[in-house]
Amino acid sequence: MEDIEFLERVVKRVMSSGILGNPKDLRNHSKVTEFVDPEDLKRKLDLEILDEPASNEELLGLCEDVMRYSVKTGHPMFLNQLYHGLDGYCVAGAWLTDVLNTSQSTYEISPVFTVMETFVIRHIINNFIGWDDGEGIFSPGGSVANMYAMFVARHKALPDVKTKGLRGFPQLVAFVSEDGHYSTTKTANWLGIGTDNLVIIKVDDRGRMVPEDLDRSCKEAKQQGKLPFYVCATAGSTVLGSFDPLHQIADICQKHDLWFHVDAAWGGTVLLSRSHRHLMDGVNRADSVTWDFHKMPGLSLYCSVFLTKWTGMLYECNSSCAEYLFQEDKHYDGAYDTGEKSVQCGRKVDVLKLYLAWRGRGQIGMEQLVNHAFNMAQYFFEKIKHTKGFKLVLPEFQFTNICFWYVPPSLQGKEHTPDFWDQLSTIAPKLKEKMTKQGTMMIAYQPLSSKSFPNFFRLIVHCLPSLSKEDMDFIVTELQRLAEDL
Amino acid sequence: MEDIEFLERVVKRVMSSGILGNPKDLRNHSKVTEFVDPEDLKRKLDLEILDEPASNEELLGLCEDVMRYSVKTGHPMFLNQLYHGLDGYCVAGAWLTDVLNTSQSTYEISPVFTVMETFVIRHIINNFIGWDDGEGIFSPGGSVANMYAMFVARHKALPDVKTKGLRGFPQLVAFVSEDGHYSTTKTANWLGIGTDNLVIIKVDDRGRMVPEDLDRSCKEAKQQGKLPFYVCATAGSTVLGSFDPLHQIADICQKHDLWFHVDAAWGGTVLLSRSHRHLMDGVNRADSVTWDFHKMPGLSLYCSVFLTKWTGMLYECNSSCAEYLFQEDKHYDGAYDTGEKSVQCGRKVDVLKLYLAWRGRGQIGMEQLVNHAFNMAQYFFEKIKHTKGFKLVLPEFQFTNICFWYVPPSLQGKEHTPDFWDQLSTIAPKLKEKMTKQGTMMIAYQPLSSKSFPNFFRLIVHCLPSLSKEDMDFIVTELQRLAEDL
Repeated sequence: MEDIEFLERVVKRVMSSGILGNPKDLRNHSKVTEFVDPEDLKRKLDLEILDEPASNEELLGLCEDVMRYSVKTGHPMFLNQLYHGLDGYCVAGAWLTDVLNTSQSTYEISPVFTVMETFVIRHIINNFIGWDDGEGIFSPGGSVANMYAMFVARHKALPDVKTKGLRGFPQLVAFVSEDGHYSTTKTANWLGIGTDNLVIIKVDDRGRMVPEDLDRSCKEAKQQGKLPFYVCATAGSTVLGSFDPLHQIADICQKHDLWFHVDAAWGGTVLLSRSHRHLMDGVNRADSVTWDFHKMPGLSLYCSVFLTKWTGMLYECNSSCAEYLFQEDKHYDGAYDTGEKSVQCGRKVDVLKLYLAWRGRGQIGMEQLVNHAFNMAQYFFEKIKHTKGFKLVLPEFQFTNICFWYVPPSLQGKEHTPDFWDQLSTIAPKLKEKMTKQGTMMIAYQPLSSKSFPNFFRLIVHCLPSLSKEDMDFIVTELQRLAEDL
Repeated sequence: MEDIEFLERVVKRVMSSGILGNPKDLRNHSKVTEFVDPEDLKRKLDLEILDEPASNEELLGLCEDVMRYSVKTGHPMFLNQLYHGLDGYCVAGAWLTDVLNTSQSTYEISPVFTVMETFVIRHIINNFIGWDDGEGIFSPGGSVANMYAMFVARHKALPDVKTKGLRGFPQLVAFVSEDGHYSTTKTANWLGIGTDNLVIIKVDDRGRMVPEDLDRSCKEAKQQGKLPFYVCATAGSTVLGSFDPLHQIADICQKHDLWFHVDAAWGGTVLLSRSHRHLMDGVNRADSVTWDFHKMPGLSLYCSVFLTKWTGMLYECNSSCAEYLFQEDKHYDGAYDTGEKSVQCGRKVDVLKLYLAWRGRGQIGMEQLVNHAFNMAQYFFEKIKHTKGFKLVLPEFQFTNICFWYVPPSLQGKEHTPDFWDQLSTIAPKLKEKMTKQGTMMIAYQPLSSKSFPNFFRLIVHCLPSLSKEDMDFIVTELQRLAEDL
């Protein structure tokens, strides 16, 4: 049992590493990242797989390197992505899931998780989305959940495509805003609809879909003899954190008989807070919703749900009656098996992570986490609004994505000519390189074509209970320090 | 830090539960399953999520129930599915992955795992598939990997479908055998090709695709003005464990210019053994391969790779140039980022589980595991061949799926009339119910339409080092015991 001895030693090492535990300790004692160039890292890691087994000592040494050179995503200064770790309840759920290693395809092999998944999905649908009925499935990430959405919508519009394929049917047309997530583009490609038939709808100055442009585009597609069938609205856009006007979009979907999907992968978590759920008013009118609990709530990947109010649709779309799994003469009611609803066959359990975190914190605890994230983000927003060198991308606070340019000393006070913007565009990559190499923090940057904005920072505030005003102050002074000589 | 205290207690409980550790102990001290009907289980589990946090005591009680009522997939008598747990190296990899919680989309956030994934995929491609060049990606399960295959093939056949959609192009036609996995049917649906355009090719008496029927079907599709583009051969079929004749299929694919995919989700692991890899002779001629390491080698879900010999194709098919992730002015070479190759955005790390198991056992250890599984399966096959009441489905041993009918005392010695078969068909469900309710073992049963076979058992032997002849003998006597009164 060399392997179990190894596991025990890895656990001991992880528990004492500081990666788990108080994020403040992590901040005080550890870098976010110890960046090494790819080719150097290849040389540092001795990955060759030999004929002979490696000793547990050797393997532990390797695990040390894995920990050392991996990004500490639970570090309070990991502000880089829409996901973030690390919740202890969730890790317990993840570890237990790994050990009970099973698939969600049938009740027979996954009794507890089948019951739990059904319960949690029902809980979300009734108490947060606001549908009386509906169903859902945990999916390996928000992109796949969004793919489910367009797939189910395609099936509802043209059920015979399942057997006959898209050829011979009218050209389907889907809609998403300029600031919607790129998974919708990938989906249009995978599902055979074609990216040219995904119409990109304009956004307003705050990054929200313009309903009039949707209405107009829809009419135009119809005039061209095409069949509009699907709108993906965004609740919490990837860069600006914008929430599309759901009620207005619902009206247009109703008018043109379109499937109304809400991609709330990032923003869905506002529904946990009575103070902020208004951002998603109208979500109850959606036909389907994507919500990633591995994003804002800080649970580990994957923890993504696809929900639809059309009970039975997932089965209707996906069932293929595999007789080796879904026998008709089972000794329990086969209707409990969830496998036929899925595009996957083996499906890893993701629900236990969410369930333990939700139950461990209680609904009130989850709400407090969300409110705290908003408070910290708003504090940061207000602070940089009045700090020299910071230039906000949006005039008003809207979500926990805070987008800003940092104008270094050499550019401060200069006129905003095209040349100024060109120079400013080079600043974020330079600062990113510095912060990454020094390992003090990680904040993403990007341009935004829809607004012709050159590179700016997007700082993401998550549900991290320990995050404090001091942390937010640190980000400001650290950026100033890094930019001193720019 | 209530959550971390909870995690520590869960770990302690898991380590002392017997779920990890010597599978022999698990067998002696624990049932495979403690089956409870779905409605009863709902009542036993008190799942309600309250406003107030649950105490760690309460949560631990719940985790006890989760463990108690979950199937012990690492138990030697879990012979039910193509997957199986539990390897200690792999669990260590899984746990470390959960704690380092990151996504494989960019090198920046996933440096170690990007380098490791690239290394392992190259190792598999060069040393086991036999391509000089190629690329791949870890995918959430074999079904999604098979979907990658048909998707990439579609793109190679008709690259403009990416932008224009399938409408307006010739009808694509794909091929898979009667015994191929149902994921190919799901894929034909999702990708917009239509399940009617997935032609089902006959199998021979051993469940292997008949090449002549493939050739004929391909010609027929062409004569109908359709465009044949994709063949999915199966290496290790789900029920009978058959290996399609890869060289002959490769010849036909070459002749008709078809993409040649090998679904080796289940059977790929034979490539780890010098004694058994001949079963997949010709795999080096494939355009793409699916291989699930969470199946035969007993690693935890997901550990599935999609491989293709066409370097650059995954990028070409999937790239959508999301500017918030794949900036062109990064401080390292963005070519290391793997996100643009994927249909997912966030992609959980699966490679560490495989890497630690492979390195911890060494190549020789992995080979021994495979050989041992073959030996145990063959021992069982030979044993039941000469044991009263057992009736083999296939005349000869071919893989570690062993398919058989159990003929109970009341039917033994009877003539094989249609009535005999009707009655025999009811036996497997009855025995399955008994073994499940008593929790002594789990073996799947199913009919097989392609051969008009009524319900029979499919016993799966995995790479489990502790599995012994005594275990195999136990299965025989246990089936006899369970069937005594039938």
